[in-house]
Amino acid sequence: MDSRFPPNHEHLDHDMVKMEVNFDDIPGEWLGHVMDLLLESGANDVYYTPIYMKKNRPGTMLQLLCSQENVDRMKEIVFRETTTLGIRYYPLTVHRLERTFEQVPTEWGQVTVKKGIYGGKAVQWAPEFEDCKRIALQHGIPLKKVYEQVWKSTGE
Amino acid sequence: MDSRFPPNHEHLDHDMVKMEVNFDDIPGEWLGHVMDLLLESGANDVYYTPIYMKKNRPGTMLQLLCSQENVDRMKEIVFRETTTLGIRYYPLTVHRLERTFEQVPTEWGQVTVKKGIYGGKAVQWAPEFEDCKRIALQHGIPLKKVYEQVWKSTGE
Amino acid sequence: MDSRFPPNHEHLDHDMVKMEVNFDDIPGEWLGHVMDLLLESGANDVYYTPIYMKKNRPGTMLQLLCSQENVDRMKEIVFRETTTLGIRYYPLTVHRLERTFEQVPTEWGQVTVKKGIYGGKAVQWAPEFEDCKRIALQHGIPLKKVYEQVWKSTGE
Amino acid sequence: MDSRFPPNHEHLDHDMVKMEVNFDDIPGEWLGHVMDLLLESGANDVYYTPIYMKKNRPGTMLQLLCSQENVDRMKEIVFRETTTLGIRYYPLTVHRLERTFEQVPTEWGQVTVKKGIYGGKAVQWAPEFEDCKRIALQHGIPLKKVYEQVWKSTGE
Amino acid sequence: MDSRFPPNHEHLDHDMVKMEVNFDDIPGEWLGHVMDLLLESGANDVYYTPIYMKKNRPGTMLQLLCSQENVDRMKEIVFRETTTLGIRYYPLTVHRLERTFEQVPTEWGQVTVKKGIYGGKAVQWAPEFEDCKRIALQHGIPLKKVYEQVWKSTGE
Amino acid sequence: MDSRFPPNHEHLDHDMVKMEVNFDDIPGEWLGHVMDLLLESGANDVYYTPIYMKKNRPGTMLQLLCSQENVDRMKEIVFRETTTLGIRYYPLTVHRLERTFEQVPTEWGQVTVKKGIYGGKAVQWAPEFEDCKRIALQHGIPLKKVYEQVWKSTGE
Repeated sequence: MDSRFPPNHEHLDHDMVKMEVNFDDIPGEWLGHVMDLLLESGANDVYYTPIYMKKNRPGTMLQLLCSQENVDRMKEIVFRETTTLGIRYYPLTVHRLERTFEQVPTEWGQVTVKKGIYGGKAVQWAPEFEDCKRIALQHGIPLKKVYEQVWKSTGE
Repeated sequence: MDSRFPPNHEHLDHDMVKMEVNFDDIPGEWLGHVMDLLLESGANDVYYTPIYMKKNRPGTMLQLLCSQENVDRMKEIVFRETTTLGIRYYPLTVHRLERTFEQVPTEWGQVTVKKGIYGGKAVQWAPEFEDCKRIALQHGIPLKKVYEQVWKSTGE
Repeated sequence: MDSRFPPNHEHLDHDMVKMEVNFDDIPGEWLGHVMDLLLESGANDVYYTPIYMKKNRPGTMLQLLCSQENVDRMKEIVFRETTTLGIRYYPLTVHRLERTFEQVPTEWGQVTVKKGIYGGKAVQWAPEFEDCKRIALQHGIPLKKVYEQVWKSTGE
Repeated sequence: MDSRFPPNHEHLDHDMVKMEVNFDDIPGEWLGHVMDLLLESGANDVYYTPIYMKKNRPGTMLQLLCSQENVDRMKEIVFRETTTLGIRYYPLTVHRLERTFEQVPTEWGQVTVKKGIYGGKAVQWAPEFEDCKRIALQHGIPLKKVYEQVWKSTGE
Repeated sequence: MDSRFPPNHEHLDHDMVKMEVNFDDIPGEWLGHVMDLLLESGANDVYYTPIYMKKNRPGTMLQLLCSQENVDRMKEIVFRETTTLGIRYYPLTVHRLERTFEQVPTEWGQVTVKKGIYGGKAVQWAPEFEDCKRIALQHGIPLKKVYEQVWKSTGE
Repeated sequence: MDSRFPPNHEHLDHDMVKMEVNFDDIPGEWLGHVMDLLLESGANDVYYTPIYMKKNRPGTMLQLLCSQENVDRMKEIVFRETTTLGIRYYPLTVHRLERTFEQVPTEWGQVTVKKGIYGGKAVQWAPEFEDCKRIALQHGIPLKKVYEQVWKSTGE
């Protein structure tokens, strides 16, 4: 099972881990590259937070979420690609909704809409960003126009 | 003319000013209060930015936008209500769109939608937040449900 | 027992939880509303952190603290009111000080001062913000003036 | 002359403009897309800053730098692709260094190094990020290894 | 006249400049050092802001305030000590209050209090941080205890 | 054993703790002082994150890492030196690399380079900041020049 694609029903995942590293000795352009590598290698999410470190240093905290089974792979990338000498981490639980997908028509073609089901009821739905962006670029129209058409065609 | 309510056609306003103050010696709860006072007294916008100041101090930059005629009123509030000994400011230009308003029906009542007209063409429209919030609270429904109904009823 | 009002003696609370959600698909004005709802429904604290997400997206992380018994109520609000398909959380311990309150006179009326007792000794005291703000607005005086009078009348 | 490629000698450019917009009503994923569009259409730089707006709203400030001649093109993208009803801007001066380029050998091929000349003296040099990244991906090696080889081969 | 020590009466200074540089290619520990150098060399203020730059890069914006006459000195430090190839800047006005100083007794010795005079009336007063910190360290007491004693002895 | 100086071989440390406090009622200049005190008293790391708190308050989150055995010492400093009535904390694991040190010659004297060993292989090396800064200040040269010389003399 690829842990990036959790089962598609509502469930609690007790095997997730958050990893964190603080940086004050690496340029931002390297960190942009590191984010890509981590996402391609199985991180469920990667994000940066600005932090204030000692000696007036503007720093950056890397945070990433992954499954227990991916901890070693993530560590290897972080140690090889960044400047850190230590990685901290702790377990956490994730409550994930059931996800369903449907196709919604627009004048420029279909867009996938992702729905989130909570206790058997749809509580979320969102047009897939990459679908909307592709249409916007192909047709030279604003991204928000695409979203607006999908909004008009969806919902309960 | 009250400068907070600029003329309702598309125009360039060359009489705007941005004021800025850096704080490292004031608690955040006072700044929340100051924001309210400035907005009630004629500021067009007020916002805070996190900044890193000398001696490892997490600081906050106040920025506010107002018309030339309101500069003195803003200064008085800032000097009286905060801890600063200096305020910096510089002029800027604002390009504002024409704004029109229309009423859109939902099952819980009407919502005002604000449109932005750029070169004679509508490029923006947005449900008024306070209308949607009022309905959400009165009917005990999620705010996003109200927006979704307005989205379905609006647009071109 | 309402978990927002923990016992008023110094203690360790081992039944607290931190919940987190990352957002890149929700407007900030909705999040302001969500903060209010969560605080009214039993969250002990709610705050947002700016984060840098993939694809150049400025995002926002919601963090909230609540007791174990409120986890389900918090989840329901987050899933119903926001756009997320997942919530992560983990347990933590809170060391809380004993709290005592006293009334301090000012020329505009009394202000409550909250004290924090650590190992039997007062280490914190702070004027109640809402008391000071009410006086400031009623009498048309700067908030800091009210604090200054309380400071003069308090302490050891 | 394409203003994104200023003359390659040290000079003061007095025809630059900074534009700013505050957002509290747009999702972050749209803003990632807007950044790309602006950079492709002639912005010299585009960046986002987290800001705290009224009503507890986590917001985002867009800032972009462009030449006077590109102001209208930038405005059109911002008004068409975002949710704003107003754009503010003001002129500024940019002091740019002379730039020279040289090829530096590594065991994986050549890397371009960009030098900055200030008053006739080289004060900056930096390996081109895209060159280093391409090598890192092609050869499956850490990005920092590529930089390290370039550093060893360069300098005065 | 040393521009870092402006005249001590309330005045408008129309000869100030704000300089800005965006960084995505410099480690935070260098920037801590640069802040010190700029402050020692005549900058009136220096601060960093977290920014989101292209290609998922967490970046840092340097902002500094200085007088017109110090612009060249600041530029030289920035070009020599950082990695940038360009510095942008624009003029601004600063409204500064009259400052007066008085000595306030505490049980551990005197502390200087700085007052700000606006239109002939005292609107600000603040204990000097370095005085309070020195006492706190010498006597092994919390910094806030020192401030509290000064607050009790000061004010109108 | 002083927990700030963990054993110098690669290992997992399961006895670390992260402590967190949110502040909206303390000035930034006090927090700069608190960071110094915590680092001097055994914290392994201390950093601040900007957060958005209720009632439009720009706040600051303190985070610190320490070993289990230092939790009480850290609590005492936080309760005595800040304004908080509660501290939250949770355990975490740290994976630390083996560290080795070597001396690298430059024209201005030797600089210590710290290496990080991961699975028996050197993956990190970095000039010691304080060594480089001392040389830069003594010789009146840019800090980056010192780093550049070390980079040229090091690596595999």
